[in-house]
Parts: sequence; C-alpha cells; structure tokens
Amino acid sequence: MTEVAKNGTWGNDRPIGVAVLGMGNVGTEVVRILRDHADDLRSRVGAPVVLRGVAVRSLDKDRGLPADLLTTDAAALVAREDVDLVVEVIGGIDPARGLILAALNAGKSVVSANKALLADYTGELAAAAERNRADLYFEAAVAGAIPVVRPLIQSLSGDRVNRVVGIVNGTTNFILSAMDETGADYSATLAEATRLGYAEADPTADVEGYDAAAKAAILASLAFHTRVTAADVYREGISKITAEDLETASAVNCTVKLLAICERVAGEPSPEEGGKERVSVRVYPALIPRKHPLAAVSGAFNAVVVEAENAGRLMFYGQGAGGAPTASAVLGDLVMAARNKFYGGRAPGESVYAELPIAPIGDTPTRYHVNLQVEDRPGVLAKVAGEFAKHGVSISTVRQEGHGEGARLVVVTHHAVESALADTVAALAEMASVTSVTSVLRLEGTEE
Amino acid sequence: MTEVAKNGTWGNDRPIGVAVLGMGNVGTEVVRILRDHADDLRSRVGAPVVLRGVAVRSLDKDRGLPADLLTTDAAALVAREDVDLVVEVIGGIDPARGLILAALNAGKSVVSANKALLADYTGELAAAAERNRADLYFEAAVAGAIPVVRPLIQSLSGDRVNRVVGIVNGTTNFILSAMDETGADYSATLAEATRLGYAEADPTADVEGYDAAAKAAILASLAFHTRVTAADVYREGISKITAEDLETASAVNCTVKLLAICERVAGEPSPEEGGKERVSVRVYPALIPRKHPLAAVSGAFNAVVVEAENAGRLMFYGQGAGGAPTASAVLGDLVMAARNKFYGGRAPGESVYAELPIAPIGDTPTRYHVNLQVEDRPGVLAKVAGEFAKHGVSISTVRQEGHGEGARLVVVTHHAVESALADTVAALAEMASVTSVTSVLRLEGTEE
Repeated sequence: MTEVAKNGTWGNDRPIGVAVLGMGNVGTEVVRILRDHADDLRSRVGAPVVLRGVAVRSLDKDRGLPADLLTTDAAALVAREDVDLVVEVIGGIDPARGLILAALNAGKSVVSANKALLADYTGELAAAAERNRADLYFEAAVAGAIPVVRPLIQSLSGDRVNRVVGIVNGTTNFILSAMDETGADYSATLAEATRLGYAEADPTADVEGYDAAAKAAILASLAFHTRVTAADVYREGISKITAEDLETASAVNCTVKLLAICERVAGEPSPEEGGKERVSVRVYPALIPRKHPLAAVSGAFNAVVVEAENAGRLMFYGQGAGGAPTASAVLGDLVMAARNKFYGGRAPGESVYAELPIAPIGDTPTRYHVNLQVEDRPGVLAKVAGEFAKHGVSISTVRQEGHGEGARLVVVTHHAVESALADTVAALAEMASVTSVTSVLRLEGTEE
Repeated sequence: MTEVAKNGTWGNDRPIGVAVLGMGNVGTEVVRILRDHADDLRSRVGAPVVLRGVAVRSLDKDRGLPADLLTTDAAALVAREDVDLVVEVIGGIDPARGLILAALNAGKSVVSANKALLADYTGELAAAAERNRADLYFEAAVAGAIPVVRPLIQSLSGDRVNRVVGIVNGTTNFILSAMDETGADYSATLAEATRLGYAEADPTADVEGYDAAAKAAILASLAFHTRVTAADVYREGISKITAEDLETASAVNCTVKLLAICERVAGEPSPEEGGKERVSVRVYPALIPRKHPLAAVSGAFNAVVVEAENAGRLMFYGQGAGGAPTASAVLGDLVMAARNKFYGGRAPGESVYAELPIAPIGDTPTRYHVNLQVEDRPGVLAKVAGEFAKHGVSISTVRQEGHGEGARLVVVTHHAVESALADTVAALAEMASVTSVTSVLRLEGTEE
C-alpha cells in the first residue's frame, strides 16, 4: 500500500497485540496461522500482529510453544497493556462471558467462535462493545469457515431476508448422510461417527440439536434484526430417526436432514400483538426433496440457504467445523478488527430494531409426511382423509400400499399448523381402522 | 439501538444524501428500494437515508419519479452539498470514471456495480478513496446478489486463497445449459436466449467472455492481493462451442461451462522472476465432470468456488444478474457506507501488497480432451500416443471408437502446459493417419 490514510495515532511499527483464550482444535490452528503467516498478516493489516500469549487450562501439556507465551491466568492476559485484541475460543458460557466483557470494557476488540455464548448474550456483549467503541466479531460461531454472519450483517443489510434454512451441524449431517447411504440404523451409525471422530464422546449437544439451535438463534437475530435466543428456538434432535424413516424418505425421492429454519410467519391477529409479523425459529429433522440444493450437502459439510426479497435465493456451502476452517473465519475477523484499530474503523454494530415477536411452534405451518398402518378394507382411505379434513389439514397426496396386515397409507399434507397436525394424529391413533401411526415427519423445501 | 457510541459529528436526524447515477435495470430497483424501504434503511443506518437525485440520459421518459429528482447533469448532482454517497450504475468507463473520481475527491463514498471500470481502474479509484478517507464498495460488480467480493476482502483476509473458479456470466451459462439440455446448436440457442431477454441485442461482451474476464480480474486481484486487470486475463468465448462438443462432453459424463479461473501457479525459474509464485487468470469454456458442484449451476445462475488453505472449499451460489438481485448488493454496500458516515467507520481499503507476476496462458497447466478423426488401421493409436509423449504431454486415457471412415480417438491428458498441447495438436494435424483434429477442449474440476 503506497498511500495510507490513517485515522488513529497508530504508528506503522506499533504492533497490534493479540491474546488467544483457549488452545483446543481451533485455538491451536489460530496460533499456528498467527505465527506462520505473520508477514502476510502484517501486510494486510498495516502493522505487525503479534501473539502476546495463550491462555490454557494446564501448563503440563507440551504445545510446541515457548513457555512464556502460555499462561493459566486468562484474566491477567486479557488485562495486559500490550494486548489490543482478544480471540475467545474456549467455548461455553463461563468463564468466556466474563473474559469477553472485561476485554470490551477495556476497549479491546474481541473475536469469538462461541455460539452458545453468542446465542444468549449477544445483547450484553454488543452493548459493551458499543459503549467502549470496540469491535465484536463472531463469523466463526456459525458454520465454521463459511461466510454467513458477515453476508447477513453487511451484504444483505439493504435487503429483506424472508427465510434462512441451513444444515449447520456437521456431526448430525454426517450421521444422517451415512444412514441414507448405508441403510444402517441410528445407534450403529452414531458409534461409527464417534469412532471416526465426527461425534464427541458425549454427543448430546450435537444429536439433540442444541448446537444447531444456538446457531439458528444467531442467524435469526441477524436475518430479522430481532433478538432471538436459544430458548426461543423449537428443537428436536435426530436420535429418534430410524432406518425406516430414511427408507420412507427415499421412497418419495427425499432424504432426511437436520435443518435450522428461521422464517417470517404471519402475525397473530390478537389485540396485544396487533397482527405484527412474527419470526419462527426451529431445528428438527425433516424430509427434503433430493433435488433441493441442501439434499446434496453430505458428510460433515454445512450449507446455508438465504432467501431475500431482492437477492432471491443464495446458498453458501463449505466446511462447517474443524480446527483449520474455523480458524480461517477467526483470522478473517481478526484481520478486520486489527485493521479497524490501525485505520480507526468500526465493525457494524448490533441491529435489533425490528423486535419481531417469536411464533410458537404450534402456530408454525409446515408440510407433513404421515405413515399409517391400516386395516385392508374398503373405505379406510376415505375415513382417514376425512379425519385430516375435520382438523383443517389439507391433503396433497395419499397413497395406499401393500395388502392385508401390511397395508399402509402414506399421506402428504399441504402446509398446516403444528397444532392442527398434532390433533389430527391423536385422532388417527384412536381410529379403529388405523393399526398404528408409524411415523410423522415434516417435509421442507418444497415449493407447493 | 438503545445506546449509540458515535464517532463523528453526524446528528441523529441529519440525513445521509444519496445520488444515483443511471436508471437502467439496476438503478430503477435501487431507487425503488430507497423509496419503499426508507424506514428500514433508517433503522439500520442510524440516520435517514434520502435520495437527492437520479442522473439520467434523457428527461423525456416517464420514470414514475417526481421531476425534481431527475437530472441530466450527473456532475452537478455529484457535487451537490447535500449528497454524501454516490451510487454509480451507469456502466462503462466514461463518464463513470470521472464522476466517481469527482465524488471520492470530494470525500463522498461511492458504491459501484461497474465491473468494466473496476477491472481496469481499481488502483486509481482506491487511491482516491484512501486519500480522501472515503469508501469505495463494489460487491455488485461481480456475481450480482451473491456476496463474493466481501467474503474475499474480509472473511478470507486471514487465509491464503489458492484458487477461485466461477460461473460469473448468466447469459453464457443460460446458453450452455440450454445446449446441454436440448442438443440444439449455438446460434439457435443464442437466438432463443435473445428472444427471452437473457442475451442482449449485441451479445459480444457476454458470449466472447469480456464480461467474465472483467469479473475474473476483480476476483483475482482480491484473492491474491495483486493488481490484475482485464488485459491480464486470457479469454476465449463460447461462440465456437458446437452441439457436438456438448455431446462429446456428455459421453464422458461432463458438461461444458464458461469458467473464470484464478489460481496460483508455479513461478518461472528465471533470474528476473526469481521463481516467484505466479497468478493465472483465464476465462474459457471447459468440460467439467457432472458431479462437480459447478456442473449443477444451470440457467442464468452464477456460482463461485473458492479454495483456501485453511477454509478448504467454499461455494457461493445465487442470481448473478438482474435488476433486483444486483440492487440488493448495491443496497448492502450503501447501508455499510452510510453507517460508516454515521459512526465514523471505514471500508477496508485495497490490498495489493503481494504483487505476484501474471503467468502467460502458454505456461498454464490444464488437462485436455482431444478428439481425432483417424484412419482405421492397426498402429494408429500407438502413433498418436507417441506424438503426445514426444511433446511431454502425459496421457490419462485414450479410447478408440467406431470403424472405417468414422474411426475416432478420444484422448484425455494429465495436466500439461498450453504451449506443449498446442505443439502436440499441430503435429497431430500433420500426421498421415490423422484425418482431422475434431475438437480440443480443456478439462477442469477433476482431482487427478
């Protein structure tokens, strides 16, 4: 850069000091890149970017770093005068929350990959950042290396986002893809995923959808300019998905994916809500047509589809987890935060002016795929169809399969609200001619 | 936003004045969004965003705007004291270049969708922006609504991009997709594309690859921190692609796409260049395997694949042209530029520190798919293979097809440099047993 129009008083040789909190998969890669690519980073920022220290839980392990770079006292590292930027890759709420607040309150910019924390505390952290004129960046918190936070905050800031649908958890996508390919059942596939390192020893956060729900909360907040926390997200995991569900899906040219869905839905016409448009945020496994772009996202990959009024449908695809891909997103934020220090810029702040109400899952319209075991005699189809009609659930297709004891009805509905479908299913289960409701799966990604 | 930590002296009610230069497809949509979504834009920026005027070529046409918003004097509009931001959607070099420079020199930020101008004059414009502490944004110049400029500048700023491969021209992709589906020839398909509005009356800029080359130059500059202009881009269009080429492609489970390819290639081990890594930037139609993610991008859609050292392979997909999608990208930039005015921030400036040399096309390794009409007698295959070997071009597969006069050889090579392949083809054409070299197509997107 030949000509530099600087804002602040940062000297060209005054280094920007970085503290890294946590040295797991991501932290290790962040530290490696900071050290191996120091020259490139310096050229891109305008000033040297220097690693001041790394906070770790224990000093016993050999991490291939000079001993004076390691400390167990994260708070003291954050407070150091020569630390200008803090990278938080510890994860979890405490102590990450306190450390980030301490950094921001001292005017230091923060880059975080912590989805659980950001899903619930973005408001508090963003306020601290604004108060202290510091930056808070968190691209790495959603979908690893895939730029989706920045496109939502910046690129689409002049558009109106109507829907965000993503595969944002690699573990569950690996499991569902493998079940789809091999026909194996859930527990055998989970065991294999654990063996290969795609699932953690305790896989609850992934397979029960908590991880995806935190990311959905972050995506919905950004997309709709409305604060959405993890508690606002309706959540079902994949642990009840069976080999038969995948078979059922295949029979109708679909597959099953754990989807994070954020969308605008109609407002409730009540006096309090004033009919204001609402936001629905939910995570659950659902059928999607094989020709849908998300159906092709297999293994541990992630993808996010954004539908906006003017931009139309956009898709972002890539590696959603792993040390190096997540570190790539962290380093991108770090370079931006460092440039802001150097040039006197600021990250775009929080934008939650719309304050849309959250729609409960019962009010959320979806399509359903219902499998019933039925008695093989005339009139059953009509009776079952009548039960759907009685509850206001409109049927798209109904197919009768098999004979005798194996007779089945496969019903695909038009969009219906969750509560109406639940009532229908309860009533079907009581019908004499229905042996059992074999499965109820949501169907997403169809045009209808 | 409850708490605002402002930098500048911008009052909350002082509007940010916008001038729009040009009212074609994109300009019309920009103006519509500015007027229809004024409340949202105000909330997102922090201050009102007000359209001050639109520069048009003629005042005769009814554009559905108050007459006092329209002017033919673009320079005077840019110079107005109440104009803080200028949106340039005129296209072409002049008068766009002078108007943008005038705006930047007056400290006004600029949002441009002008790929031809940015491909050749980014250096001059970026210097003016830096000198005057103004912003220059141009997300809309490449791939319409798809965020790819911002991810390259910001999200991947801490990574090392090795390759960018994109389908960045909707007209040619529409034509090639249609030829692939229908088997029709080039001229009939171009005529249909023109009739449907996917090709302009004079389609040269699109079908001969000039539009894609300008975008490739912009992408390469950002990806490799090196100034690349349109003249540095090797370019071939699609006007010589035949129905037989598509058939040939299909036979080997490939399709043909016009690709913009930007990649790092090995340096020339000459004393002057010092073996420094080089950049290859090229636009041409090539075979790609049907299972490659870009093969599924059909019709007027665009997609860009970015491969980076740490992030791995990312893909961005969406609408690459059209009034509303391009306006979405313009408005995103406009909100960011307006926020910077309000909060005192700055867009990330140009980064061309790497200054990598450009590799000529002759030095660029690619795989090739060569079709030969040959005499049907023993020993031809060996002779042809020998000719490839003599020029140092390693063969991956060779297949003999047909008999008698219709005998053909289909040769697929490993990576070879363009110049070696050209020599091979020239020698093959001279061989007695070779009736003709039917087609030579590049093959991209294979792992090898």
